This record gives sequence, structure tokens and C-alpha cells, in this order.
Amino acid sequence: MSRTSSVAALFPFQLLKPDLERVEKAIRGQARAFDPSVEPYVAYVCGTSGKRIRPALTFLAGGATGAVTADHHKIAVTLELIHIATLVHDDIIDGAEIRRLAPTANAKWGNALSVLLGDSLFAHALMLSTEFDDQTIGRRVAKAANAVCAGEIIQTQRRFDFQLSREDYFDIIRKKTAALFAAAMDLGAYLNGQPEPVVNALRDYGTDIGTAYQIYDDCLDLVGSEEEAGKTLRTDINKGKLTLPILNLIASATPRQREKLSNLLLQKEPVDLSALANIADYEGAIESAIETGLEFVGRARESLVVLPSNPHAAALRKITDFLSGLLEGCRQ
Amino acid sequence: MSRTSSVAALFPFQLLKPDLERVEKAIRGQARAFDPSVEPYVAYVCGTSGKRIRPALTFLAGGATGAVTADHHKIAVTLELIHIATLVHDDIIDGAEIRRLAPTANAKWGNALSVLLGDSLFAHALMLSTEFDDQTIGRRVAKAANAVCAGEIIQTQRRFDFQLSREDYFDIIRKKTAALFAAAMDLGAYLNGQPEPVVNALRDYGTDIGTAYQIYDDCLDLVGSEEEAGKTLRTDINKGKLTLPILNLIASATPRQREKLSNLLLQKEPVDLSALANIADYEGAIESAIETGLEFVGRARESLVVLPSNPHAAALRKITDFLSGLLEGCRQ
Repeated sequence: MSRTSSVAALFPFQLLKPDLERVEKAIRGQARAFDPSVEPYVAYVCGTSGKRIRPALTFLAGGATGAVTADHHKIAVTLELIHIATLVHDDIIDGAEIRRLAPTANAKWGNALSVLLGDSLFAHALMLSTEFDDQTIGRRVAKAANAVCAGEIIQTQRRFDFQLSREDYFDIIRKKTAALFAAAMDLGAYLNGQPEPVVNALRDYGTDIGTAYQIYDDCLDLVGSEEEAGKTLRTDINKGKLTLPILNLIASATPRQREKLSNLLLQKEPVDLSALANIADYEGAIESAIETGLEFVGRARESLVVLPSNPHAAALRKITDFLSGLLEGCRQ
Repeated sequence: MSRTSSVAALFPFQLLKPDLERVEKAIRGQARAFDPSVEPYVAYVCGTSGKRIRPALTFLAGGATGAVTADHHKIAVTLELIHIATLVHDDIIDGAEIRRLAPTANAKWGNALSVLLGDSLFAHALMLSTEFDDQTIGRRVAKAANAVCAGEIIQTQRRFDFQLSREDYFDIIRKKTAALFAAAMDLGAYLNGQPEPVVNALRDYGTDIGTAYQIYDDCLDLVGSEEEAGKTLRTDINKGKLTLPILNLIASATPRQREKLSNLLLQKEPVDLSALANIADYEGAIESAIETGLEFVGRARESLVVLPSNPHAAALRKITDFLSGLLEGCRQ
């Protein structure tokens, strides 16, 4: 299987087409809730950021456990706006100028406006989440948003920190990436009044898929080509983010090798990524990360046993197959 | 009366001492809710930012309408954390290096960490607000937080915009500054189960006091000395924020004068603030802003008629007297 990173391919767009089109309109419609002087900025970032993975998961969880309702759409919009807010701030932090072939907000309007734009989107999303009569929903959204922010700041704070354990790493990506995936699945089922075991199983699916997806992204950062990925690769490592293959490498290194890795990773010049990729491959560190990713995918698949047989449940299963394929494709 | 900007003097600290000490502990205690690798950053900004005005108002509204309860303390912490989050981001935007005699977060750790630190504080505060059983509270907090972000971004977007009307200006400061003052008063009364007219009257008090306070700050930016103010003054105008005295000046200017003002304000060199202050004074633009501020204070005072006679209500009245004095002190 090709190492295409087209996450779009992860999702059964035909099945979700009407819902995704409707959510697209709703997301852009939210821009009109802002002051006229701010609306164009909101509309721009909503149009150029976010792959609608979280809305898609919300709809799949909803469809698999009953029907996709107006409340599912509201949650889908809320979670995607939180995600877009974090992307706007990420791009400031990374000094990124391009996202999905379009200039980032900070490249277009500078950091000052982008900080406030992210804040406004974030505040707006959290306000939307409090509009439900059942306040469990607002609580879960706030908790997930909190986890994302916590994951991002711990990751940033521990850049270049060779003491980072694999447990720390999993804690970071569970918060930063998997929390919103988990909230999408969780709330998708919860809104249909599903019993707790089903809600929990689908939340676990979201956590595991989110974790596996991040591990795939980590591997791609080391073995992928930019043409395949459609984005700038190998930037995480240069920014000091210790990805799973690198953590595997550090864990298995002798003291002498750790010193070499330290020289390779901590020198201020751009890291020799091709050397690093070759070593990681030779030592089996990428292989091992792929195996870990596949374990998470396997667990996600098992969580789906709680679901009845229907097209949305089948699509959730297909996502696990597709993600396995992407991970397998990272083998050298 | 001296033009001291010591806002601390606004508040009856003797009356509120036990509550303010307890809230101080609680705010610092929140730092421990964060990851150990992040806690020191949270503790630092909570210790160096925020004047606890919002907690003080929450306690005064609570005490004036019954008792100050544990819920008042929780709201006080929540509102102050939101305020601190906005200060952390403001300092990035303004490139500020010092706040209240201490280095800002961005000066100490750079913009990347500070963006995420503000986000984390903000997300944490909103999560706290969803923990109340009564979800009206979470909704009002989210709405106020949303207003603050909206006010900040509209203000930034309309820097150097001579088309800004006084209505636009009042809309901005009502959102950016007065919304959290209003929420503090509103929720302080609401938590004591006060009837709607009382809650509304105290919310209006918060809005009017917040607005008057911002107008005072605007005047101080033009007429105050840095020693008196204890902070860097005359930065708003250089950053293109059109304050009320300047808007008054623009409104009364002839086309020829507008051109001169435009040259004075829009040139990229630092603005000749002393010339601007002299003109604003001569034209009565500062005087007029002071009068407007006093009108808001007067309205705030009238809102207090709903309260019974007690020390907390008396303190709220004293705040209006004190703020009037500060505004009067800005007359040249």
C-alpha cells in the first residue's frame, strides 16, 4: 500500500457526504456569529484548516448507534472549531507559513491577530458546547479541550528532553491528539442515549485510533516523502519533539550511542534526518513503532464489538483496516 | 486627589481580606492541577498577573446579597484565571517585557510557550466553570469569556481605523473589559439565589464600573506619569488603539485638523504624545472623556439601590466614589 497521507481516504465520504457537506456549511456559518470586522478571518481559517476528521467520527459514532441528529452536527462543529483554534496557535508556535497549500493566518496577518483569532474560535466553541440542556456535554467538551491544551504545553515544555519516557509520550499524544477523537466518538454515542459500556467502548476506539494515527504521523515524519504527505515533513524532530521511533532508539541505545544521538539531535544545525532515519531503521526503532501503532489499531477494532451491524459501524471498522495499511506502508 | 492608579486602593481590603487571602491560595492551588512540568509556569503567571479585581467584585456582590460561599470562591478563581490567560496573550501581542515589575511570560520563556500557557489557563478555567450543577453558571462564564476574546480581536483588527465610532469603542470596551466585571457581579448575586432584577442591576453595575474604569485608563494613558501609574503608559495610542479622548478629538476635528491628527497618529515614528495630550486637553477631548466616565459611574451608583444596607453594599458604593475621584484627578 502506498504511504499516501491523504487522511481523507480514511473516511467513507460517500456514506457521510450529506452530513459532511452540512457541517461544512455550519462551520462557515459560525463565522457570521462573529463581528463583521472579524468574520473574514474566521471564514478564512475555517476554510483552510482542519480535515473534518472529528466531525466524521462524530457522525460515524452517531450513525452506528442510531441516527445522526442536529445535536451531532452541533458537537461536530464545536469539536472542529476547537481543533482549528489549536491549528491557528500551532502555526504561530511553529512559525509555519503554509498549511494545506494556503498561507497560514500568522503568515497573512501576523502573530498578534492570530493569537486572538485562535482565542476567539476557542471561546466561541466552548460557548456553543454550553448551549446543550444536558450539561454533561459541555463538561466533556471542556475536559477534552483542556486535555488538548495540556498535551500541547507538556510537549512544548519537554522538547529536547531525553528523559521523556514512552509513558510520558503516550500521555502527551493521548491528550494532544486522541482527546478530541475520543470526545467525538463518546459524544456521538452519548447523544443517542447509549448505555455506558457502549459510550466507553467508542471513546476507547477514539483514543486508540487517535493514538495510532499520531504514531503513523511520527513514522511518516521519518520515512515519508513530502510529495506523498502533502505537507512539510521532518519538522517535528528538528523542533525537538521526540517522536516514538526516536524514543525507541534512545531506549535501546548504549551510553556511547546515546551520546551520538544527543549530538545528532541537540546540535543547533538542522538535524541530519536521513542519517537518523537510516539508524532508526537499522535498529528496528521504526519497525517497533509500527508494531505499537498496529496494537492500538487492534484494540480499536476490538472495541467495536459493542456495535450492531450497520453501514456506519462497518465504516468504523474500515478505518482500522485502512490505518493498519498506512502503518504497514511505513516499513522500509 | 492624586492620580494614583493603585487600583488596590479601589477596594476595601480590610473587609475582603480573609476572602482575598483564601482566593489567592486557591488560585495558586490551581497550578497543582496542571502537569508537574507545567506547574511552575502557571504558578509564576498567577503570582505576577491579575489584580484580583474580579474576585473582589464577586465577593462584594456575594456579601451584599447574602453570604460569600464556596461557590463564590470557585467563580472568583475561574474569572481571575480567564483574566490572567488574556494578560499572558496580551503581553505576547504587545511584546511587553515587564508587568507589575516582573518579567512577562513571553520575556522569560518566549512566545511559543506563552501562547500555550494562556490557552491552558483559559481551557482550565472554562472546565472549572462547567463543574457547577447549575449550568447557567457555565453558560454565563463561557459567554463572558467569549465577549472578552471578541473585544480583544475587534480592537486589534480596528487599530489605526479612523472610522471607529464611539459606539464601536463602547462595544469593544464593554466586551474586552466590562464583560468579566459584569459576570463577577452577576454571578455573585445569582449564586445567592437573588431575583432577576437584583442580578440584572448588579450586572449593570459591573458593566458600568468596568466601562468607567477603562475610560479612566484611557485618560491616564494620555495625562498620567509613569511613576504615578506604576506601568508603561502611552502605549495604547502608539499601538493604534483609539482611546476615548482621541476619538473625541477626531469627532470634533475639521477636515484640516483630521489630516493633522492622521499625520500625528499614523506616522510610523513614535507618536508625539505630549503634543497630542496638549491638543486633546485644549480641545476639551480629555474633559469630555472624563465627563463620560463620570456618567457611567453615576449609573453604576444608581444600580445599587436594589441592595440592602450592609458593609459589602457600602463598599460597592465606595468604589464608585473612589472611581469618580480618579476620573476627576485626570483633569489638567
